[in-house]
Amino acid sequence: MTDPQSPLLRHFAGRRRLETLDALFAPRSIALVGASQDPRKIGGRPLVFLKRYGYPGEIYPINPQYAEVQGLRAFPSLAALPAPPEQVVVALPAAKVPEVLNEAAAAGAKSAVVFSAGFAETGGEGARLQDRVTATIAASPLRVLGPNCIGVINVPGRCYGTFAIALESGTAPAGETGFAVQSGAMGSHLFILARNAGIGVGRWAATGNEADVDVADCIAWMASDPGTQVIVCCLEACRDGARFRAALGLAREAGKPVLVLKIGASEVGQAAAASHTGMLAGNDAVFDAVLRQEAALRVDSIEALLDTAYVAAHAAKRRFSKARAARGRLGIVTLSGGFGILMADVASKAGLTLPELPAEAQREILELVPFAAARNPIDPTAQLNVVPELLEKCLDVVLAKGDFDALVVFISGVPYSPDLGKIYLQAVGKMRKRYGEPLIVLSAVGPAAYRRRVERAGCLYFEDSVRACIALGALRTLFALHADARVSAPPDPCAEDFPGIPDHPTDEVEAKRILAAAGIPVIAEALVASPEEAAAAAARLGFPVAMKIVSPEIAHKTEIGGVLLGVATPEEARRGYAALVAAATEKAPAARVRGVAVSPMIAHAVETILGVVQDPVFGPVVMFGLGGVFVETLRDVAFRAAPFDAGEAVRMIGEVKGSALLRGARGKPPADVAALAAALAALSRLAAARRDDFAAIDVNPFAVLPAGRGAVALDALVVPSGRGAQKAMLNAR
Amino acid sequence: MTDPQSPLLRHFAGRRRLETLDALFAPRSIALVGASQDPRKIGGRPLVFLKRYGYPGEIYPINPQYAEVQGLRAFPSLAALPAPPEQVVVALPAAKVPEVLNEAAAAGAKSAVVFSAGFAETGGEGARLQDRVTATIAASPLRVLGPNCIGVINVPGRCYGTFAIALESGTAPAGETGFAVQSGAMGSHLFILARNAGIGVGRWAATGNEADVDVADCIAWMASDPGTQVIVCCLEACRDGARFRAALGLAREAGKPVLVLKIGASEVGQAAAASHTGMLAGNDAVFDAVLRQEAALRVDSIEALLDTAYVAAHAAKRRFSKARAARGRLGIVTLSGGFGILMADVASKAGLTLPELPAEAQREILELVPFAAARNPIDPTAQLNVVPELLEKCLDVVLAKGDFDALVVFISGVPYSPDLGKIYLQAVGKMRKRYGEPLIVLSAVGPAAYRRRVERAGCLYFEDSVRACIALGALRTLFALHADARVSAPPDPCAEDFPGIPDHPTDEVEAKRILAAAGIPVIAEALVASPEEAAAAAARLGFPVAMKIVSPEIAHKTEIGGVLLGVATPEEARRGYAALVAAATEKAPAARVRGVAVSPMIAHAVETILGVVQDPVFGPVVMFGLGGVFVETLRDVAFRAAPFDAGEAVRMIGEVKGSALLRGARGKPPADVAALAAALAALSRLAAARRDDFAAIDVNPFAVLPAGRGAVALDALVVPSGRGAQKAMLNAR
Repeated sequence: MTDPQSPLLRHFAGRRRLETLDALFAPRSIALVGASQDPRKIGGRPLVFLKRYGYPGEIYPINPQYAEVQGLRAFPSLAALPAPPEQVVVALPAAKVPEVLNEAAAAGAKSAVVFSAGFAETGGEGARLQDRVTATIAASPLRVLGPNCIGVINVPGRCYGTFAIALESGTAPAGETGFAVQSGAMGSHLFILARNAGIGVGRWAATGNEADVDVADCIAWMASDPGTQVIVCCLEACRDGARFRAALGLAREAGKPVLVLKIGASEVGQAAAASHTGMLAGNDAVFDAVLRQEAALRVDSIEALLDTAYVAAHAAKRRFSKARAARGRLGIVTLSGGFGILMADVASKAGLTLPELPAEAQREILELVPFAAARNPIDPTAQLNVVPELLEKCLDVVLAKGDFDALVVFISGVPYSPDLGKIYLQAVGKMRKRYGEPLIVLSAVGPAAYRRRVERAGCLYFEDSVRACIALGALRTLFALHADARVSAPPDPCAEDFPGIPDHPTDEVEAKRILAAAGIPVIAEALVASPEEAAAAAARLGFPVAMKIVSPEIAHKTEIGGVLLGVATPEEARRGYAALVAAATEKAPAARVRGVAVSPMIAHAVETILGVVQDPVFGPVVMFGLGGVFVETLRDVAFRAAPFDAGEAVRMIGEVKGSALLRGARGKPPADVAALAAALAALSRLAAARRDDFAAIDVNPFAVLPAGRGAVALDALVVPSGRGAQKAMLNAR
Repeated sequence: MTDPQSPLLRHFAGRRRLETLDALFAPRSIALVGASQDPRKIGGRPLVFLKRYGYPGEIYPINPQYAEVQGLRAFPSLAALPAPPEQVVVALPAAKVPEVLNEAAAAGAKSAVVFSAGFAETGGEGARLQDRVTATIAASPLRVLGPNCIGVINVPGRCYGTFAIALESGTAPAGETGFAVQSGAMGSHLFILARNAGIGVGRWAATGNEADVDVADCIAWMASDPGTQVIVCCLEACRDGARFRAALGLAREAGKPVLVLKIGASEVGQAAAASHTGMLAGNDAVFDAVLRQEAALRVDSIEALLDTAYVAAHAAKRRFSKARAARGRLGIVTLSGGFGILMADVASKAGLTLPELPAEAQREILELVPFAAARNPIDPTAQLNVVPELLEKCLDVVLAKGDFDALVVFISGVPYSPDLGKIYLQAVGKMRKRYGEPLIVLSAVGPAAYRRRVERAGCLYFEDSVRACIALGALRTLFALHADARVSAPPDPCAEDFPGIPDHPTDEVEAKRILAAAGIPVIAEALVASPEEAAAAAARLGFPVAMKIVSPEIAHKTEIGGVLLGVATPEEARRGYAALVAAATEKAPAARVRGVAVSPMIAHAVETILGVVQDPVFGPVVMFGLGGVFVETLRDVAFRAAPFDAGEAVRMIGEVKGSALLRGARGKPPADVAALAAALAALSRLAAARRDDFAAIDVNPFAVLPAGRGAVALDALVVPSGRGAQKAMLNAR
């Protein structure tokens, strides 16, 4: 469960405020404004669904034209109701919405669901109307879903504040998977697919234009909802990155898996997303990183979304150990060697391991079936269809002696043979009872009823064994993320002695001073103002040295001849000083030259690049990559939203392919990854503490020395945001 | 159709010999040896299937114990038959198989299908028995499927020489997709899935132990079979790479797509494959490359296999232009903006493009539906469900004015509303009639019958719109491969003046001489034997030069200090000569030093690595990669089976990520890719012509200069196979 004291709740104005959403997901009474006699109309369908699926609360159709609507007593207005409705569903033209919301608040309603379209999604006049709705909501205690939404569903609560056409052909089985989606069409489609696949649905909300309640609210509410164990989220764009992260954090604190399908990843998709929602799609790689930090799983298809939700909900229902899920040791028993190989391939790619069965168990399998493959995958061969009782015996050996967290049993089309199908079903059912822990998947193709029988026996059913392996792999990834996740609260910029970031463009020396003050190691360096000082500094620092011109106006020093490397003698240092100043005078006559920086040359280092950019949705985001071709040619970089700790930094480093170089590729010693990770974490704290004060930070190169010898920034650039200057002006007024 | 003169036919002993497989796939009479009264037994099931599904030929049950089996007149032996059976199906214990095959040949049979297990798959005794079967087959005209196979099916021909349990629950609709698989369990499962999905099946064979007929034979036969338009192949291991390539080549020549699911790609999978088949799984990257060269499409799941086959068979049936399929311009019309974005994302990743609708057409769409997204994806919004007739109007604009090769129309769960579902179906049906070319997919979820109605209207149906996009992308890839494919016949090693490869280890100078003779540019070089010669050669070649010790016994010259770079003066060259010889004498006293190689230094080049390895299945395979971290750290390499032409080499180069460097990344000019491609092609011809004579060739580094300036091998190594020496010995006997 969610910690009632979690600091993350402040993003939702506290626990009390979040609980006001109860009236959205589980209202004890519902008034429908614009109630229609026509069961096919938007104002008619909710009544059909509420009646058909047995809503236990009061239903108040509001329509001044009728005394009765669809057999229910109707009321002329919200004011005329005998008791306050907990929820008001609005099926009226857009222009009437602000007024109805005021009436709803006056009637004592706690929540409203606004179906009406014609708001921000149409731009212009509609956007202005939505502004009015937003203002109305701000001035009332109502929690509002929509406008332009298809509503809210609570299957176990038999509550249907929706006109989703999906419900016309039946509702879904009650379950503990919650759906928080933006697009109504997508949510409706997901509902149909879940229903057709027999996946239990708990709460379901499509947020539409999100004038008040957004997906983050829904996720945060579901995190503490005892009826929700798995949360499925579909979103096109995230407006408030901090709230979204906080919602994911609350779910993680409650131990509930969140699966996210974010649409709009490709360039074409992003163009379509922009025209569809008008929101910022955000940088896709950043979104990826944020999900990973918050231990949510990103999937890339509806299929993966529902398959993973199915497995995760089953695991939650069985109270399957998260530690075992995160371990992900898969056993495969297969009627087809070929499928065994295919599953093994896919499972390995999906992050599962396939440990061999212990030698003793292998011998027992071979005693049962002489020509079996007994390692794992375990293939008892076609012999099984001749002596079907062998399946139970083989499974018993595998489960008793093997150390698996999940077992997939593939029996192809056997269920089409009723006798064999029954024997095999009994075998897995017995195993389910005899052995508590591993998840058991039966993968088969057969009559529709077979699936239900398998599920009643306490096992998972997948027609496609490959999809079973992918979903089990996703479950492993999910709980591995949960195990890794650390909450990194942003440091208090006042409490910690963080350096300030000036409003003016900084030069290299100043930038490194800021980084050093934030705990990022930088190279020893002397800023000198004459040839003699240069020679003396070089002698003190130790030859050979690097010398660089220092000027806030010269960002690209190499291009104007402003860098000298490998300066080996005092005389070279003196001549070098003169040459650098001459180059600056000639090539950048307007630049103010502060002097020349002298620093020792670094050998045997792996060059990396650290940086911070400002993401429009998630704020400061730290980037990491290897130097050279890795960043420039291969775009091999990893992101993390700031702040994060060194453990997260280590995972971040591991995500780039080039990190093989840090592990000591090409015959070199391993590099000091701990020092690198500490620097990334320190940079992330600086970025979080001073988030408003800079536009970008570049630490390039950041030289990582062999293990135990640390790392140092050789060059750096801090670009101020200019907002500090604005603030100062405002304060001065 | 296959070219009857295709040189590829020689791999199958010519067209006539291939046609003997007609008796396997379409026999006019079938004898079943070991016929059983029990319809559930292996010897009973084929009779059930042949009768139930209406085999039009003669059926001869062979069983000396009965006068009648399952209502058919039985015969005591093959010899007792009134006429020669075209096919003999054998359902007897393994030990009897050689004898039965002899009897079958004596009775005038043309083909045999051997169900019996207990052969090579069990090792030991079984392997020896299989050797006897192989010898028996070699001495007879019979074409034999198996042993240890589940048989052959011809759905349009109503021919079922199989005991596949899949058939018990029904057969598949007749179609033009052929299945050539190794594993019977896999083939049987595929058959069920195809049937359940309503995919038409043509010929189907599971080859089992492949004592005679293998998947290559089946593919080659299907290539010229008028009843096969798409070929699906599942294989675990390929024993004869050349025949497999030839079979794929025949299918490509016939314009028929081949889809391949190769199992055993991961390390775990390969271990399982080894225990399952005992065949060589081959290097997976090489297999990938070979498929691409032969224009076959590799898929990685059953789902992708069947989805792509479904789309490809539909395209073949509609005689859809391959050029348009290869172009892959996708239009999307969607009831859900969110799904539109998701489809756009997936389609882009799958290689399709989503061109915008022309401005005029966009205006027309917006006139029809004011708030529509009109670019592409085209989203007519929920307005469509209010005025369903708008779909036809929108589609008419899209098809008349847009330039698409495929159109996906996503209507979510609309088919559950019978009225709307009918209107939408009529709309796509009309469009199908009005517009000839683009493929039209209707993606929806609804009652099972809706799918059939959509297909009857001439459209494709996909429940999952994402899978539709992936399958259309796969079709594009397939026909893009077809368009690219060039037949590169191996050069005649005698006709072309190819250099020989000596039997002894070669030094660098000798290796480069061989490469140069094969048409690969190598650096100008002088082999010198004294300090004075070194100085003179360096002056002639132009300073600075590189100097390297030359000895067949010193492969790793740098490690013993045998390389000097940037030698700038005659005096340095003289001293260098002495230093190199001294280093060799000290560090490798046993090595025979042939002298010192002097060559000019090359600047501004991109360093690449070319190589040839011997693949156990496909023979000489050329490797390409970029120098430095790309090969050593990132393993970023591409493969091609030798020989191939420069066009194929260009595609090969494009496959490695590091090829961005060749296009002029990091501010450098583009490199001479044409020269590089020519060198790769020349290397591939050398490798093919001298395939038996070397174990490996390394050209590292191969320096690629800026465009127009060519490329040169700076160093090379040729490792002889030793087989030349063996040959010489054999010839001398």
